[in-house]
Amino acid sequence: MRKRIFQGRVLSLDVYKVSLAGRKVTREVIEHPGAAAMLAIEDGKLLLVKQHRFPHGFVLEIPAGTMKRGEKPQKCALRELREETGYAAKKMIPLVKYYPSIGYNTEIIHCFVASGIKKVSGLELDEDEIISVVKIDFKKVLRMILSGKITDSKTICAVLTYAMKKKIHV
Amino acid sequence: MRKRIFQGRVLSLDVYKVSLAGRKVTREVIEHPGAAAMLAIEDGKLLLVKQHRFPHGFVLEIPAGTMKRGEKPQKCALRELREETGYAAKKMIPLVKYYPSIGYNTEIIHCFVASGIKKVSGLELDEDEIISVVKIDFKKVLRMILSGKITDSKTICAVLTYAMKKKIHV
Repeated sequence: MRKRIFQGRVLSLDVYKVSLAGRKVTREVIEHPGAAAMLAIEDGKLLLVKQHRFPHGFVLEIPAGTMKRGEKPQKCALRELREETGYAAKKMIPLVKYYPSIGYNTEIIHCFVASGIKKVSGLELDEDEIISVVKIDFKKVLRMILSGKITDSKTICAVLTYAMKKKIHV
Repeated sequence: MRKRIFQGRVLSLDVYKVSLAGRKVTREVIEHPGAAAMLAIEDGKLLLVKQHRFPHGFVLEIPAGTMKRGEKPQKCALRELREETGYAAKKMIPLVKYYPSIGYNTEIIHCFVASGIKKVSGLELDEDEIISVVKIDFKKVLRMILSGKITDSKTICAVLTYAMKKKIHV
């Protein structure tokens, strides 16, 4: 049995009463449309955005955003790359996808790797986005993850998966 | 201005109206007490739990759980290791901590590495947990991440960070 508690702009909240192992239990579940992110490297440097994230403050992360209704993850990743950095990509392939909080949130984050990237426009930000683009040497980003300076799950998952697949070490 | 929409057993939901870049915007924020997870290896095999996660079904992940009120991350990780696997650890060190959904969720997940682990008891599960323990060769877990068979953020972040720090490759 599901009770919708809240339906918002980005997420909804449901409370379920379900039977698990013969017991009636309650589960609080965040319903989220999912997100997509793009790892894009130019001349050995990773494209990152420095974005204001309420309530955390400024955060360094790969370009990403929430999927619009009916939007495919690929299209969302390309759109966010374009809007947040002004870059287009010739090609992209899936890198890793994961559930950020598998215990209570339906959100899945699809990460891709772009290749053949090129700056084609300025940023096209939503009116409530505060973003600047930063390019950092890929190995330096790896070291920033290992030393705890980067704390965003999609950036950690995408960068480490890419490094492991490409046998890049620090 | 904050309006509390829901206060639940695990999480709460607030809607904020804040000024960003001179504009009044709305932010939907999940308030979560945070979680801790433990990476524990015995004879080259990683301790994993196969856990029923509503609404996802059975998921393979490292032992982890939500911090109780006032509980330190270290204590939580040791407690969850003990409850979910029956293992105790002689020593532990911080591995990686991250925000799973930095755009709208206050949850932070603290991951640790245990050493000197030993089976000391049976499992002590909450009445609504369905869990079994699985030991898998660490390099096989790495391959399962790279091939998309493991999709839980804390398992991906902890395993890849550990592999990168220890220069373990597949």
